[in-house]
Amino acid sequence: MASEDREELQEAENQEILQDLSEQGKTAELVEMFEELPTMDVAEFMEEKPLEEVIAFLRKLDIEDQGRIFSDFSQSIQLKLFHALDRRSFAKVFGHMFSDIRADLYQELTKEQQIELLPYLDKHVREDVIILSAYPPETAGGIMTTNFATIFADMTAAEALAKIRKDAPSKDMIYYIYVVDDSMVMKGLVTLKDLVMSDPKDKVIEMINEFFVYSEVNEDRESVAQKIEKYDLVAIPVLNSLNQLVGIVSHEEAIDIIRAEQAEDFEKFGGIMTSPNDDEYLQTSSFHHFKKRVVWVVSLAAIGIISGMIISAYQSVLESFIILAMYMPMMAATGGNTGSQAATVIIRSLSLGEIHDEDWAKIIFKEAKISFMLSLTVAILTYLKIAFLSFHALLPSGFSMSYIAFTISFAIAIQVITSAVIGAGLPLIVRRMGGDPAVVASPAISTIVDITGLLIYFTVASITFGIS
Amino acid sequence: MASEDREELQEAENQEILQDLSEQGKTAELVEMFEELPTMDVAEFMEEKPLEEVIAFLRKLDIEDQGRIFSDFSQSIQLKLFHALDRRSFAKVFGHMFSDIRADLYQELTKEQQIELLPYLDKHVREDVIILSAYPPETAGGIMTTNFATIFADMTAAEALAKIRKDAPSKDMIYYIYVVDDSMVMKGLVTLKDLVMSDPKDKVIEMINEFFVYSEVNEDRESVAQKIEKYDLVAIPVLNSLNQLVGIVSHEEAIDIIRAEQAEDFEKFGGIMTSPNDDEYLQTSSFHHFKKRVVWVVSLAAIGIISGMIISAYQSVLESFIILAMYMPMMAATGGNTGSQAATVIIRSLSLGEIHDEDWAKIIFKEAKISFMLSLTVAILTYLKIAFLSFHALLPSGFSMSYIAFTISFAIAIQVITSAVIGAGLPLIVRRMGGDPAVVASPAISTIVDITGLLIYFTVASITFGIS
Repeated sequence: MASEDREELQEAENQEILQDLSEQGKTAELVEMFEELPTMDVAEFMEEKPLEEVIAFLRKLDIEDQGRIFSDFSQSIQLKLFHALDRRSFAKVFGHMFSDIRADLYQELTKEQQIELLPYLDKHVREDVIILSAYPPETAGGIMTTNFATIFADMTAAEALAKIRKDAPSKDMIYYIYVVDDSMVMKGLVTLKDLVMSDPKDKVIEMINEFFVYSEVNEDRESVAQKIEKYDLVAIPVLNSLNQLVGIVSHEEAIDIIRAEQAEDFEKFGGIMTSPNDDEYLQTSSFHHFKKRVVWVVSLAAIGIISGMIISAYQSVLESFIILAMYMPMMAATGGNTGSQAATVIIRSLSLGEIHDEDWAKIIFKEAKISFMLSLTVAILTYLKIAFLSFHALLPSGFSMSYIAFTISFAIAIQVITSAVIGAGLPLIVRRMGGDPAVVASPAISTIVDITGLLIYFTVASITFGIS
Repeated sequence: MASEDREELQEAENQEILQDLSEQGKTAELVEMFEELPTMDVAEFMEEKPLEEVIAFLRKLDIEDQGRIFSDFSQSIQLKLFHALDRRSFAKVFGHMFSDIRADLYQELTKEQQIELLPYLDKHVREDVIILSAYPPETAGGIMTTNFATIFADMTAAEALAKIRKDAPSKDMIYYIYVVDDSMVMKGLVTLKDLVMSDPKDKVIEMINEFFVYSEVNEDRESVAQKIEKYDLVAIPVLNSLNQLVGIVSHEEAIDIIRAEQAEDFEKFGGIMTSPNDDEYLQTSSFHHFKKRVVWVVSLAAIGIISGMIISAYQSVLESFIILAMYMPMMAATGGNTGSQAATVIIRSLSLGEIHDEDWAKIIFKEAKISFMLSLTVAILTYLKIAFLSFHALLPSGFSMSYIAFTISFAIAIQVITSAVIGAGLPLIVRRMGGDPAVVASPAISTIVDITGLLIYFTVASITFGIS
């Protein structure tokens, strides 16, 4: 929290500068600050203002700045501005937005709105939007931008820099420059650093990196992000099946994807169904939230019938040993906790790449050791708890309190070990079968170890109490 | 999984090229590939080889490449090489490592090893390592690198580019160039793009960005990562209390931090105690794993005594209505599931910044609505389940099966709603008090709603069955 306060402080400073100028009616100075401050802060300031004021502000800026600030607006404001502006004015700003954000916005429009807008767009913008919108959102194509700079291999460094100077105003990412042939087939890349550092007469072909990391246009976005992360890239080129350069994905997209994918794992593990198109919490209808949760709740209730059947089968045992019924919930809770803990650690370690499928035997053995220590602790606590709570409990004749307490503690110790092994094993099995280990939701583990727990409980009790 | 296979494929290609050349004994070509391929791939290839071979490989490369590849080795290989090399040779490579990774490695050495190494280091490396090692690892200072390029405000673009050309071989990040005064006080920044695009005679002062985003040296690393993410930065400058530029944190660090912080939240929520210095899963001793889990297991067992006391208090009720005992575990499981689901959604939404403290009333109301729908579903399922499992159960005289089934279903419906509200409310309360909402672990929620569940269950049963 301390850190967030601090971040908010720095933002607040910039917001305050803008607010003060706005209140004092110093429009010229305000517009100057719009050009100076980070566009994200300007966008946030404008978002708080009435729509007509936003439009008036934007009109005072050059079209490049308008496009940038517009790109930093939330999508709901972008849509409001789409409705407030006439088609021609909107098309102008739209043409100067970041191409990936522009394609996302375009996809939010209805078919009719899209058709209405298209005639007002420049040919290259129109083509760009249509092509980018065609890729599925979870692929490299769906997240890439077409804002990149290209040069040819036979240029000199001086010629290359001249081409970049000419092209660059509309290109935001020129730190990597892509070397292509006449048909846009990618040959390699040079960094802007290489170009700047080189002799102006050096040929591009002498400094080209031919073994570059790239993504395919249909590649899953998670894999794209992982490459950016692994190779510390500022951006990754995206190639189609003909090895033509069709776009780039930059590091800021990688951060968004990693955040989104981890949040998705977190939700999956918590027993929530997710989809990449989910809206924010408060914007999502209660009924949609209900649908995302009810599947697990119903499935688990269905699996829970097995627990119910086991309990029913032992109904007569419970009647003679009511004390067993009293400690049934504790049995379930402890198993659920240790099982979830083990699954959490394994899913986390798998996702960070700390452990791999082939380590499964080592992992299970390790979990058995860890849970053995936990089981001793839990067994002692259980014994003390029973002694404390049930010292005046009604016992069937012929059984001492300590004998019953020992039986229950012993059963719970076995339950702790099985739960940890099941909790660790299930994500490994799912991963082995090619699935995402986080689908082994914590509620599912609780439900499964409920079943094994009851079986252990009644088996141990039947043996030690001599019930057939 | 498909995506990972593909990534592994591309890596595999590079690894294969190296492997083939190595097996065919084509050392010259191999060394050439070391210079061509991404250093991460070269580092991975070398890590599989015996230590003497790695040293022989490194010796064939120029010292810049050695430093880069060495930086990409895992820390355990770095330490092995520290022991295998004589101090002088090691100091040379060490001097060319990335400064942040170098400082991390230095901190892994014992005091004696550090003292042994220092005399062999160049003065600027020695000072760099000592200064960087002094910052706590969770702060901007602890993760920054000193590999940045600076210019002065009164330079022309041509002079600035000349200075960068002179300084750059040792600077990896020159896409942002920092404008400082004689005492290293930061005045602003220009991008390499600005410089390249400008007229050579333009003054730096005319293109300077004075309203730049920065971090303070003691700032929490999570806040640093958030700024890089929010403003889409390639790197963020780090200033000390005198506004002197002391380092930069680049976007790849931000990805690592975001991953680490999210993994930490995931573990916390799963009931695991975490610390930033934790080793990887298999490298951590079983006893250490045990310690990370036992705190929650013991705490929950302790809180569980309250459930035990409630059950004990109603022991006589359970004896006459054994059917109540049979459905107690289901009550606990359903509450735990819906409570965990609600907490998962709220923690996720808080961490993504979708919801804020002040929305609490809206959130609780929304959760009440969602859980009302869930409660209807669960109640119907429960009724059917009891009818199916207990149709021949022994009932106390005067009570019909449907009356009892209705009572239990009604209690479970209330339990679903309370659990969701508690599960959503606890993270909000913790956040309000300035804590990390993820500390409200899923096992803790299960344990708490166990208690409320039992109270609801027995209260409803007492009223409808007319037991005093």
